[in-house]
Amino acid sequence: MRVGVLTGGGDCPGLNAAIRGIVRKGVEVHGFDFVGVRDGWRGALEGAVVPLDVPAVRGILPRGGTILGSSRTNPLASEDGVGRVRETLAEHEVDALIAIGGEDTLGVAAALGGEGIRVVGVPKTIDNDVAGTDYTFGFDTAVNIATEAIDRLHTTAESHTRTLVVEVMGRHAGWIALHSGIAGGANAILIPEQPFDIDQVCAWVENRFKIRYAPIVVVAEGAVPKQGQMVVKDSSLDAFGHVRLSGIGEWLAHEIAAHTGKEARTTVLGHIQRGGTPSAFDRWLATRFGLRAIDTVKDQDFGMMVALRGTDIVRIPLTEATVGTKAVDPSLYSEFGVFFG
Amino acid sequence: MRVGVLTGGGDCPGLNAAIRGIVRKGVEVHGFDFVGVRDGWRGALEGAVVPLDVPAVRGILPRGGTILGSSRTNPLASEDGVGRVRETLAEHEVDALIAIGGEDTLGVAAALGGEGIRVVGVPKTIDNDVAGTDYTFGFDTAVNIATEAIDRLHTTAESHTRTLVVEVMGRHAGWIALHSGIAGGANAILIPEQPFDIDQVCAWVENRFKIRYAPIVVVAEGAVPKQGQMVVKDSSLDAFGHVRLSGIGEWLAHEIAAHTGKEARTTVLGHIQRGGTPSAFDRWLATRFGLRAIDTVKDQDFGMMVALRGTDIVRIPLTEATVGTKAVDPSLYSEFGVFFG
Amino acid sequence: MRVGVLTGGGDCPGLNAAIRGIVRKGVEVHGFDFVGVRDGWRGALEGAVVPLDVPAVRGILPRGGTILGSSRTNPLASEDGVGRVRETLAEHEVDALIAIGGEDTLGVAAALGGEGIRVVGVPKTIDNDVAGTDYTFGFDTAVNIATEAIDRLHTTAESHTRTLVVEVMGRHAGWIALHSGIAGGANAILIPEQPFDIDQVCAWVENRFKIRYAPIVVVAEGAVPKQGQMVVKDSSLDAFGHVRLSGIGEWLAHEIAAHTGKEARTTVLGHIQRGGTPSAFDRWLATRFGLRAIDTVKDQDFGMMVALRGTDIVRIPLTEATVGTKAVDPSLYSEFGVFFG
Amino acid sequence: MRVGVLTGGGDCPGLNAAIRGIVRKGVEVHGFDFVGVRDGWRGALEGAVVPLDVPAVRGILPRGGTILGSSRTNPLASEDGVGRVRETLAEHEVDALIAIGGEDTLGVAAALGGEGIRVVGVPKTIDNDVAGTDYTFGFDTAVNIATEAIDRLHTTAESHTRTLVVEVMGRHAGWIALHSGIAGGANAILIPEQPFDIDQVCAWVENRFKIRYAPIVVVAEGAVPKQGQMVVKDSSLDAFGHVRLSGIGEWLAHEIAAHTGKEARTTVLGHIQRGGTPSAFDRWLATRFGLRAIDTVKDQDFGMMVALRGTDIVRIPLTEATVGTKAVDPSLYSEFGVFFG
Repeated sequence: MRVGVLTGGGDCPGLNAAIRGIVRKGVEVHGFDFVGVRDGWRGALEGAVVPLDVPAVRGILPRGGTILGSSRTNPLASEDGVGRVRETLAEHEVDALIAIGGEDTLGVAAALGGEGIRVVGVPKTIDNDVAGTDYTFGFDTAVNIATEAIDRLHTTAESHTRTLVVEVMGRHAGWIALHSGIAGGANAILIPEQPFDIDQVCAWVENRFKIRYAPIVVVAEGAVPKQGQMVVKDSSLDAFGHVRLSGIGEWLAHEIAAHTGKEARTTVLGHIQRGGTPSAFDRWLATRFGLRAIDTVKDQDFGMMVALRGTDIVRIPLTEATVGTKAVDPSLYSEFGVFFG
Repeated sequence: MRVGVLTGGGDCPGLNAAIRGIVRKGVEVHGFDFVGVRDGWRGALEGAVVPLDVPAVRGILPRGGTILGSSRTNPLASEDGVGRVRETLAEHEVDALIAIGGEDTLGVAAALGGEGIRVVGVPKTIDNDVAGTDYTFGFDTAVNIATEAIDRLHTTAESHTRTLVVEVMGRHAGWIALHSGIAGGANAILIPEQPFDIDQVCAWVENRFKIRYAPIVVVAEGAVPKQGQMVVKDSSLDAFGHVRLSGIGEWLAHEIAAHTGKEARTTVLGHIQRGGTPSAFDRWLATRFGLRAIDTVKDQDFGMMVALRGTDIVRIPLTEATVGTKAVDPSLYSEFGVFFG
Repeated sequence: MRVGVLTGGGDCPGLNAAIRGIVRKGVEVHGFDFVGVRDGWRGALEGAVVPLDVPAVRGILPRGGTILGSSRTNPLASEDGVGRVRETLAEHEVDALIAIGGEDTLGVAAALGGEGIRVVGVPKTIDNDVAGTDYTFGFDTAVNIATEAIDRLHTTAESHTRTLVVEVMGRHAGWIALHSGIAGGANAILIPEQPFDIDQVCAWVENRFKIRYAPIVVVAEGAVPKQGQMVVKDSSLDAFGHVRLSGIGEWLAHEIAAHTGKEARTTVLGHIQRGGTPSAFDRWLATRFGLRAIDTVKDQDFGMMVALRGTDIVRIPLTEATVGTKAVDPSLYSEFGVFFG
Repeated sequence: MRVGVLTGGGDCPGLNAAIRGIVRKGVEVHGFDFVGVRDGWRGALEGAVVPLDVPAVRGILPRGGTILGSSRTNPLASEDGVGRVRETLAEHEVDALIAIGGEDTLGVAAALGGEGIRVVGVPKTIDNDVAGTDYTFGFDTAVNIATEAIDRLHTTAESHTRTLVVEVMGRHAGWIALHSGIAGGANAILIPEQPFDIDQVCAWVENRFKIRYAPIVVVAEGAVPKQGQMVVKDSSLDAFGHVRLSGIGEWLAHEIAAHTGKEARTTVLGHIQRGGTPSAFDRWLATRFGLRAIDTVKDQDFGMMVALRGTDIVRIPLTEATVGTKAVDPSLYSEFGVFFG
């Protein structure tokens, strides 16, 4: 059997570990051979396919990124996308496809599965917002990086009397903000699932100044204030005449400084959260996902995705994973209320 | 209500995070006050008790070790140990006790619970071998440290043609060895749960030399070869006349060098696995354990222990947690066979 | 003798190590006692002084920030600033002052020295731009953090076909950009000392795409393009109506994307470069500076500053250190030209 | 011109960065081409030579170890070693050789230079004991690793009342011990250059227990007690019948435990000190050494070695670098006496 492997969406620590697990077990235990599909669904659309064997995956376990490249191309949005993917698979005699990706990539996989293409999914996203799995790989690494950054900011905040706002990734879900904020000892954590009250945030910050312990506010990029609290002006050109929208972190720092009369600064962590060597947990999870994904192909259990439940790797229908974003539950969020303010 | 808190057994990253969670929520939400019991059960036996309030737990979240000190003292082994613990609690008007520790500490807690002392347990151990919980805090940090060490050894092993043996913690269970070995790309992982065949290990090592890719063997300190493969000599004095027993890592390096005719070296990671700042995961888990432990006291649900199941924190009877060591399941271990050799 | 210690300017890893060295040797060897002056020159102006002894400096060696607080207050800009500083010193019976800081703080120290106040300087700045010393502490830590961030961005850049711009600190000097850019394998490094040609930068980036190796551009916050290449528009309000000036990193990413037709993203490292535990080098250097500074007080060699020359700590007049910013020499910069493009 | 490059002795972070600097500038600026000599002088003896060009050095900057392999082979100890090296160079039309290594490798280079072979040296050693250069690359990385380990041990030492002995590399010189011990806040540092008094060490340890602050003793592997303090017994077989000599760290822990009546443990850092990704400083230094080494070849300035003096890279005769080990100066060592005890 010949198996194709692709990685779609934003890159994520652990992708290479998953590819390695798939190929090592596929070749050495099941006797399969492999091709790599370049740059996610783009390669499947355009016939960009590369050799993939055991020597190709030597030494990639600790490396971030993906040796196969990635893109956000959606074949369903292309004319006859499904037909073209089918052609690529036929031309390279690919019997089954393993798609490693987040909600979008897996959604495409589910749709192609519905069209009879033999596909198995592996969930990944640093945001941890794929439904059906306790965790996705990449998340633990991102949380460690964000926590280390917050640790660093503590010493600055305490040396100067200053609020520090840290904007972390999470457009739709606040997992990174919540985990890193709790791990980093933030005194306010703002997530997309729950619109925040800027007056409450400022009160928490003031409170922290009273005990001479500097305030750190962790905010997910997708968090928003309560209705009416943010007024966006017409002008969205920056000093160079480029159109731009300031992030929520900058807005917060501005508001907090205005309310408290004390300096406030923003740090936007950005892409450093998604790069570099994966944490031990992510390498472990990605490796296990890879091993189980190729077993799923072996069992011809197509249309399924591997998922973590407790300490077990299970299989669930791809359609279950793509019903919507896994959000932070309000009850989990409120558990940590004692640390705010 | 006045609550005592103690930490017993080997120190472990996350202890301070748990103490902080207990005290912050206990004081600010439940209105309790606290005393710290020094050095585990020793303080309970000897009446060594210190103040513990919110200012005392400020800034301790990222710090390894335990602000309360620890010991391996077992009050059940002392004359009238139970009576003396009861006296200490009475003298300091302690209504309930939270014991944070591994198998031994929790076993004592269970026994004292059986004697009517109001106790709640929090599991910790870097070894991850406490039954009833998916993970204990400290483990993730230890695995990250061991994995980083293995990463470092790869470059040395590849630059010289040399086998490197890494001895990690795990007297009774191979969790650290298995997780760090898989995350670090070891080509043999030896655990206490499964006696190893030294000839097989040497064959795996030879195999790695053939592909010019240096062999790394990860071994838990408690791993042992198959019956008859290790002959311990009478002489157990070292060069200075001290009685000593070489570790399994040294034995392995010696045997591998003898079999393969190529250099082999051992690195014993030792105490660096248990110290230093906790990983984000361990801070998160320890904090959640702390918050739930004090809620358990609030609910007067004594004789229970907090535990992780999937992403939930649950309560289980202390007696369940102390039925025996949580071992690595043979089926889990064999999942990774493809990476050996 | 009673010695006052203050830390001024931006916080910087190693400040606490220097304070500890001063106090340990001052008390234990020279028999001095100490007071801490709060928040740099502000405390000297306002009489904010705290006790400072050996127990106060226990455990601070690995901690970032400064236990004495810091500010950018300039006493020379206050009415009768010199007189008020003199009063504070007299009131607390301070015989000599050790001022730890960058160009501004040391400039004040030099001026006060000129007025007869007995002062010794210790240079610090993460920017490494103080004249007269090979390195300042804080710089090595900042470069390590920036290099680690660049390492992380490599994997993202290579997985997507994308330019990544990293904006690092350095308003007047490009030391952090140059060191971290070389250590991180950047293919363009832009520094304040040398206006860059945006067309040249875009050509370098294109070149990197040709070899399928993703471009990383490291830019100091103070770098500027050649005359005429940047047109700043009237509008400097952001989407929320706040006045703002986009950083050079954002401008670069926009220009590069426009020229190359391929995505470009910016990461602004910001405050994480100045916080957290100091590197071993910075702890070593700060400790040695501290020990020598208190010896300089002992020798009554006032008006001097400690400095690093090769592996030696020497004393130089404070006035030498404050003649101007230590810039990156064009010949050093051009040494690395082979790596650009 | 065709240039050969070899790396000899123990591997060391920064070797690949140096190789990359040599090849990038050699090819792109000077128009040279290159061959890699495998495994240090062994390859030169046995004619083991591999291609080395710009693509071969892409991506190796952050990688520890050496892509050329290393060994401790000494050609001067082989029959007609010089002749065989000359033959290898002639056969592969190598006009000049760059030898990267420590005292031994550079000593061979000096000798071959004396025989008319055109050779340029680059010093490396994690031990920092090569004469003539302020620092060698690899040292900063090793010190950072050792310091991080000491940081981790602090929390363990403080949680249990226990002495922790850390044995670091340094057979002939105490640079790693001194730098990491000072950076890590050790309360005793023992180096080969100065025989220690075990009674003094025990007194320092006792002192630390009195202030309830746990003792950390850092010892270089080559440190020895004063004459008569260590009695080595006949028996040097371990429990498995292998001949062995316990390290100095183990001996110290045994003695300290015996004297103080409190537990003492040893951690031997071993090979993790020499592996893994180089620090920013080491990448910077190794890159600069590489660039200057190939310029030295271009200038036909053979028999020379590059060296660091302050912030400058200079050239010195190879014979100067090999006059003997660069030891820690007693006056430098005694600067830190205030921290002991």
